[in-house]
Amino acid sequence: MTHSELPRTLTPTDRTRLRRFKENASFERADLEAILDAGFVCHLGVIVDGVPMVVPTVYGRDERYLYVHGSVASRSLTGAADDADETICVTVTHVDGLVLARSVFEHGVNYRCAMLYGVPRTLTDDAEKTEALRLITEHTAPGQWDYARRPSRKELAATTVLALSLEEASVKISAGPPDDGDSADAELGLWAGTLPLTTRWGAPTADPVLPASRTAPAHIVARAGTRQG
Amino acid sequence: MTHSELPRTLTPTDRTRLRRFKENASFERADLEAILDAGFVCHLGVIVDGVPMVVPTVYGRDERYLYVHGSVASRSLTGAADDADETICVTVTHVDGLVLARSVFEHGVNYRCAMLYGVPRTLTDDAEKTEALRLITEHTAPGQWDYARRPSRKELAATTVLALSLEEASVKISAGPPDDGDSADAELGLWAGTLPLTTRWGAPTADPVLPASRTAPAHIVARAGTRQG
Repeated sequence: MTHSELPRTLTPTDRTRLRRFKENASFERADLEAILDAGFVCHLGVIVDGVPMVVPTVYGRDERYLYVHGSVASRSLTGAADDADETICVTVTHVDGLVLARSVFEHGVNYRCAMLYGVPRTLTDDAEKTEALRLITEHTAPGQWDYARRPSRKELAATTVLALSLEEASVKISAGPPDDGDSADAELGLWAGTLPLTTRWGAPTADPVLPASRTAPAHIVARAGTRQG
Repeated sequence: MTHSELPRTLTPTDRTRLRRFKENASFERADLEAILDAGFVCHLGVIVDGVPMVVPTVYGRDERYLYVHGSVASRSLTGAADDADETICVTVTHVDGLVLARSVFEHGVNYRCAMLYGVPRTLTDDAEKTEALRLITEHTAPGQWDYARRPSRKELAATTVLALSLEEASVKISAGPPDDGDSADAELGLWAGTLPLTTRWGAPTADPVLPASRTAPAHIVARAGTRQG
């Protein structure tokens, strides 16, 4: 299925249908993809011995799947046979700013958040695994797949890669000023507004063991100063 | 128990003892506290209908507990009686940069991450609840507890606040250059190093309904340009 054949809206399930803050829900595939593409790490939720475990990890994606290294979920995968449900949750969050209202109660956060649910598939085919590692690398460190040494056969065998369908997703977006500007609290005469939060890449720092003559490649230098998120 | 009476090291449990990347583990209480204090949102992991759910939310802390609004965990709390284990996981992650190695396999992320596990307690005492809301507010938006209107009795009643002990914690810290500088890959002659990632607060944006004469208070203006994380 090519991208153009994928439905442009996401089908809500009981899990992804928002029960609170319905005004923030989006079921546009484009919003999901934009949030995933703008992200750097996701937070992976797995159940280990009956307890939720939330682990940050890098990821990549194509049109159908999100890919993560299996090692971070290894404790879950190892014990998967014991678990009734192997469904995992992957959350990507961008914090765009703080919403400062007239009352403490109305304070909030502007954010973009995507949550995916599904039973991940462990990749076994070497070509599929290599392509997933390329997607993770190029999402995390664009340009490095062609610059750095690619995984050897041995490294590939040592790496577990999981694919999670993008099909079951919940997308929430909150933006804009506080909404108590027309409430009784507006009479308090307080300042209200937002304080933006921005994440940027800095200048590359060379490994101290490198000779000073070894300068960073253009694709790394070009990222310095750009926004992440 | 005052802070000085708390043990300075954290006692590892089966859950918090690192099974991989042992070199990154810290069991120093000071590291845990520094990571929590530097954070803005946490990712809360709960089990809902047997499935992990990872939700971003703001938080606050004192010397013994981390506090979150219960609403974000409401789906879990509502169904808590059905769940065998009500343990939750709270993860706070700072991404400090990308580690660019000579091989794709050795690429990584410099980060500071704290994971807390425990069965949260729902606060019922109004004074304790108010203090927890003060801590969440002052962690998220320093100065606003004294500036904005504080929660009314009705708002307090409408807010669920959870306290999670800081006792069972896993702290991981990864920093520094790639470690393949003395491997065979060093002979490839590639550049290697790190690309730092920094998050900063921007200039405040006033709610458009405010008159232009209403300027932001000093504690908000002072935050602009400062680093978060």
